[in-house]
Amino acid sequence: MRKRIAITMGDAAGIGAEITVKALSDAAVYDRAVPVVYGDRAPLEDALSFCRLGHLRLKEIHSWEEASGQYGAIEFFDAGLLRAGGWTYKRNQAGSGGASFQYVVSAIRDAVEGRCSAVVTGPISKEAIHMAGHNYSGHTEIFAAYTHTDKYAMLLSGGGLRVIHATTHVSMEEACRRITAERELEVIRLAHRGMRLLGCERPRIAVAGFNAHCSENGLFGSQEAEAIAPAVHQAQAEGILAEGPVPADTVFCKALGGMYDIVVAQYHDQGHIPIKLQGFRLDPGTNTYSSMSGINCTVGLPIIRTSVDHGTAYGKAGEGRANEESMRDAIDAAILMADNLESGV
Amino acid sequence: MRKRIAITMGDAAGIGAEITVKALSDAAVYDRAVPVVYGDRAPLEDALSFCRLGHLRLKEIHSWEEASGQYGAIEFFDAGLLRAGGWTYKRNQAGSGGASFQYVVSAIRDAVEGRCSAVVTGPISKEAIHMAGHNYSGHTEIFAAYTHTDKYAMLLSGGGLRVIHATTHVSMEEACRRITAERELEVIRLAHRGMRLLGCERPRIAVAGFNAHCSENGLFGSQEAEAIAPAVHQAQAEGILAEGPVPADTVFCKALGGMYDIVVAQYHDQGHIPIKLQGFRLDPGTNTYSSMSGINCTVGLPIIRTSVDHGTAYGKAGEGRANEESMRDAIDAAILMADNLESGV
Repeated sequence: MRKRIAITMGDAAGIGAEITVKALSDAAVYDRAVPVVYGDRAPLEDALSFCRLGHLRLKEIHSWEEASGQYGAIEFFDAGLLRAGGWTYKRNQAGSGGASFQYVVSAIRDAVEGRCSAVVTGPISKEAIHMAGHNYSGHTEIFAAYTHTDKYAMLLSGGGLRVIHATTHVSMEEACRRITAERELEVIRLAHRGMRLLGCERPRIAVAGFNAHCSENGLFGSQEAEAIAPAVHQAQAEGILAEGPVPADTVFCKALGGMYDIVVAQYHDQGHIPIKLQGFRLDPGTNTYSSMSGINCTVGLPIIRTSVDHGTAYGKAGEGRANEESMRDAIDAAILMADNLESGV
Repeated sequence: MRKRIAITMGDAAGIGAEITVKALSDAAVYDRAVPVVYGDRAPLEDALSFCRLGHLRLKEIHSWEEASGQYGAIEFFDAGLLRAGGWTYKRNQAGSGGASFQYVVSAIRDAVEGRCSAVVTGPISKEAIHMAGHNYSGHTEIFAAYTHTDKYAMLLSGGGLRVIHATTHVSMEEACRRITAERELEVIRLAHRGMRLLGCERPRIAVAGFNAHCSENGLFGSQEAEAIAPAVHQAQAEGILAEGPVPADTVFCKALGGMYDIVVAQYHDQGHIPIKLQGFRLDPGTNTYSSMSGINCTVGLPIIRTSVDHGTAYGKAGEGRANEESMRDAIDAAILMADNLESGV
């Protein structure tokens, strides 16, 4: 059966509405999903117009029961927050920021209450949601709060690599303190769970070292001996195929070469540098990204949530030249995870 | 005029002698260089034998004056430390470790005294030199000590990227403390100098952030505001084309796309992850690296020093299947830097 996929269009000032309608201009999406957009009519209409997608139309619905999933009519819930001209492209503002927050909260509520199978999120601006009075550092934290979850992790997939993070939006000093055996074991288990949802039955998990050369037997730090190694042993005892600590400077080459299915990264940039290097391509002529594949998913939530792997891209917002690859990938991953969850993973 | 290049063969237990003789089996090297190896006869002879390079022979010399740079005869200084059977491949041992240390010290002395133009180093084992009683964490520290240098940095080049490191073999906790405005300015100047020696007249230098999202305006750390930004401003005032802090997760995509010539990385793995991901390729069939390009050079020394960008590779030592690409790249870079230094850079 086709999966009901909620797609939040993100901040109207960015490229979210554009990549949403572009992704839904491909009929193949409708073979496996009934997608419904959480957003506002005016920015969606504007995106259809400047993307010259005149063969598509918008169809407002008021409940998931009304959703038919017919290609050609983009079904959406109208939040009624932004009128035509009620936002400005390319800049942070409270209006579109507050609206983007409401789309997400509505989609989470519907997923938690079982009306849809997964939530796929378009890019929001942290600054804009702050301007609207919502103090979250990003989607992940909103999902954690609204689903009452405290054990979760950010999993990125793209360019042939998959990475899950032990820590993310904290200073390096704070990351030094947060690498504990308890958190390592938690994130190894989440890696195992997330990969199974993504269709890998027996994932081989590499846990990256935190310090240079995995601390060279304790010469350059203690996190490997005190946190990572004990957690890997415990995970192995639970039957998980975990290895580590593996030196961070070669673990991604090894994963790319096929030795591992996923890498546990210890901090934000350790995971994001290789994923972006593999998945993004900058066009030297225009200094814009000509390719942006890859997805982000939050593992550990009671619902399935995937997301694009990039931001609002204000630089090209409202122009029709944004790349929807990552949105397509995020929708495909949400369908896959929902299917696997239903199959009992 | 051809440049006199000293090549230290590295630890006899590793792949150093093998990649040295393989690199010198290419006549093109001799067009621009007079290479002389610092090593021992027995491991060099063994490498010629198991690599089936029977058309080459060894020629011992006793001073640089004797070096003729004729292709076909590999000229070398015999340290007289290892006899046939006097070392075991694939494992750390004091004998070959101590010998590898002596090759390096002899080459440094000859370069400092002006008998040769550059030193290219084959891989040594830190554990093995420790077993021989020499407490250095690697080549870089030996070169710094024996040339009395305290302001230097490790520059890596490979796979289309160039990276120089503000910190290297220290814990992440220590790296948090060592990111100072003084060190940042020093390493930006070294990046400028190193790139000019590598033939880039007006290098565009990106200075990576230290914390996730460049600390998000101070929310996740202080190094960007307190150290990186002031150093970038000072460097700009000196006429250096420096920019930053640039978020670490996209700076390497930008450099690869042509926006920057070199990136200042704040810690070991921040620079090593992208370089190895771009330059190394793991063969999934054999779990060995099928490609290992890239070089390492120490900038800031009174002499030119380049090196292979990999270790002793004990796993394949003594077998004849090591890849000499990185050694060739390191020799080429040493010649280029020596030429540019002579031209007044």
